[in-house]
Amino acid sequence: MNHQIVLKAYPEGVPEPSHFATAQADVPEPGEGEFLSRTLYISLDPYVRGVITGKHMYEERVTPGDVIIGRTVSQVVSSKHPGFAAGDIVVNENGWQEFGVSNGKGVRKLDPRIAPVSTAVGILGMPGLTAYAGMTFLAKPKPGETVVVSAAAGPVGSMVGQIAKIHGCRVVGIAGSDEKCQMVTDHLGFDACINYKTEDLREALVEACPDRIDIYFDNVAGDTLTAVMTRLALGARIILCGMITQYNITGAPPPGPNLGPIVGARASMLGLVVYDYNDRWDEFASQAAEWFAAGKLKYKEDIAEGLAVAPEAFCRLMRGENFGKALVHVADPS
Amino acid sequence: MNHQIVLKAYPEGVPEPSHFATAQADVPEPGEGEFLSRTLYISLDPYVRGVITGKHMYEERVTPGDVIIGRTVSQVVSSKHPGFAAGDIVVNENGWQEFGVSNGKGVRKLDPRIAPVSTAVGILGMPGLTAYAGMTFLAKPKPGETVVVSAAAGPVGSMVGQIAKIHGCRVVGIAGSDEKCQMVTDHLGFDACINYKTEDLREALVEACPDRIDIYFDNVAGDTLTAVMTRLALGARIILCGMITQYNITGAPPPGPNLGPIVGARASMLGLVVYDYNDRWDEFASQAAEWFAAGKLKYKEDIAEGLAVAPEAFCRLMRGENFGKALVHVADPS
Repeated sequence: MNHQIVLKAYPEGVPEPSHFATAQADVPEPGEGEFLSRTLYISLDPYVRGVITGKHMYEERVTPGDVIIGRTVSQVVSSKHPGFAAGDIVVNENGWQEFGVSNGKGVRKLDPRIAPVSTAVGILGMPGLTAYAGMTFLAKPKPGETVVVSAAAGPVGSMVGQIAKIHGCRVVGIAGSDEKCQMVTDHLGFDACINYKTEDLREALVEACPDRIDIYFDNVAGDTLTAVMTRLALGARIILCGMITQYNITGAPPPGPNLGPIVGARASMLGLVVYDYNDRWDEFASQAAEWFAAGKLKYKEDIAEGLAVAPEAFCRLMRGENFGKALVHVADPS
Repeated sequence: MNHQIVLKAYPEGVPEPSHFATAQADVPEPGEGEFLSRTLYISLDPYVRGVITGKHMYEERVTPGDVIIGRTVSQVVSSKHPGFAAGDIVVNENGWQEFGVSNGKGVRKLDPRIAPVSTAVGILGMPGLTAYAGMTFLAKPKPGETVVVSAAAGPVGSMVGQIAKIHGCRVVGIAGSDEKCQMVTDHLGFDACINYKTEDLREALVEACPDRIDIYFDNVAGDTLTAVMTRLALGARIILCGMITQYNITGAPPPGPNLGPIVGARASMLGLVVYDYNDRWDEFASQAAEWFAAGKLKYKEDIAEGLAVAPEAFCRLMRGENFGKALVHVADPS
């Protein structure tokens, strides 16, 4: 018999156990090119919440009666797949049930001598790769930099911080209880950890990050992200990864720019301050002169006549009523 | 006599002409190493609003009675500075007055044969450099990409779009009147322009950007940024440059993450999706195994016992009550 957990009803807001139900089915038979595996560990991950309501980017929506999806560590029971043999330990997607059949696609075999097999869905699994990819390919930590990570006690956050320590960074975690914070500092070896539920996050960040924040690995979005943004160092990198504060929101989205699309589009948002490019004046001037001479640069000016009308012209600019570059003509060259 | 415009009172919200006053002073005498110049054009720029209330990043606050600051195109009248001679046309910072004295610091000399001198505070000046730097060093447009720019009829926006056209991009402007939009398409040569005051911006972006948006050069922030973020292409780059919708806000800041610090810190905000790194599994697995073997990776698991408690364990995770990587232990390996 294959015991299962299925969706009973779509949750509104934070899910409760009553949204789920138990079910049972016959243990399935693997077909040609498939294998049957027994679930050893089910990985519980926040993204599953998104899948249930069809908001996650790739996976199908779970409908009532369906087995809840999820990554699992499993052991092959019987196989008609040339790549997998009975006894193999794998990471696959049995979901919330005791047995599942797989065609091998996306399945990774584990070497149980490397680490306890449960870590294959934790620090050595997708959460670990998430941390590794974000730090290695996007954030690129340098020794001595300050790295802040939210959900620091979770598998992504704990891996982010430890990778940052390996790179010689100062690492500050943010977590939701004193016990979690103590684990983060004492067990994981972070330099500090802030309990965002009991401390003033902005003040605590000032204290914990005297040299400001070079890298923020964001797993939560919302107010935590907003607070961290008040303490950025020059050239800071923010990795937008998770948005757990928004997964359970129903109805209207929170006000202000929703940064979710930045994640979906793998986009980058870059701050520009022109003063940083003062050493590029010559390059720009000669390039722009060439374009101008070639007739490639048009322009429109909105010229107010005489110094006395400068205030009115400026106020028109502030109201968006100017039409082209706003100028005040004061005198002609002699 | 040197006629001037001075600050009369700090504006609350959008400034009005009554916040300014006229004044006059003697024409100043240049000292050793200085020159006197006559203002030809005053550049009116949104950042001046920030300077007046002390919110701009570098400049001093203007206090009542002070001449309003601002960049100018000027002509040297008399000089005790070896680098400048009477008759020279320069870009300097006389502010809102007819004459000013300068020590030459930060002053650029103009060649009036290249273009009308007024362009030296427009497309060939700081706004032009802003557009050039943002596009060349941050956005890096590729032929065929779609570039959207707000405040498209202004000097930065009009230069951004024309540089994008030079790079072979499809260019869509956003501006605040039909007249501006017509100038943007007919005179500046953009492919399309959206009047955000009369059109539904999200719908108009869908129509104007059939291949979505690869680059958004943001001069305004606020709702326009939020709307553009619903139409990003994979790998999009958003250049946060101006935030004109927020310059006149008094009292509480608008809700949601304020992206201003991204500009101030020249920070980058990067979207991470782990699935993009599936081809890095081998690299990650061997690196993580090495770290694990060396004792550099600690972890903490929160293991629920038995399939039946999976719903409760998942709900605890959703409430942030888990402590470490959330797992359900279903069976032991054989």
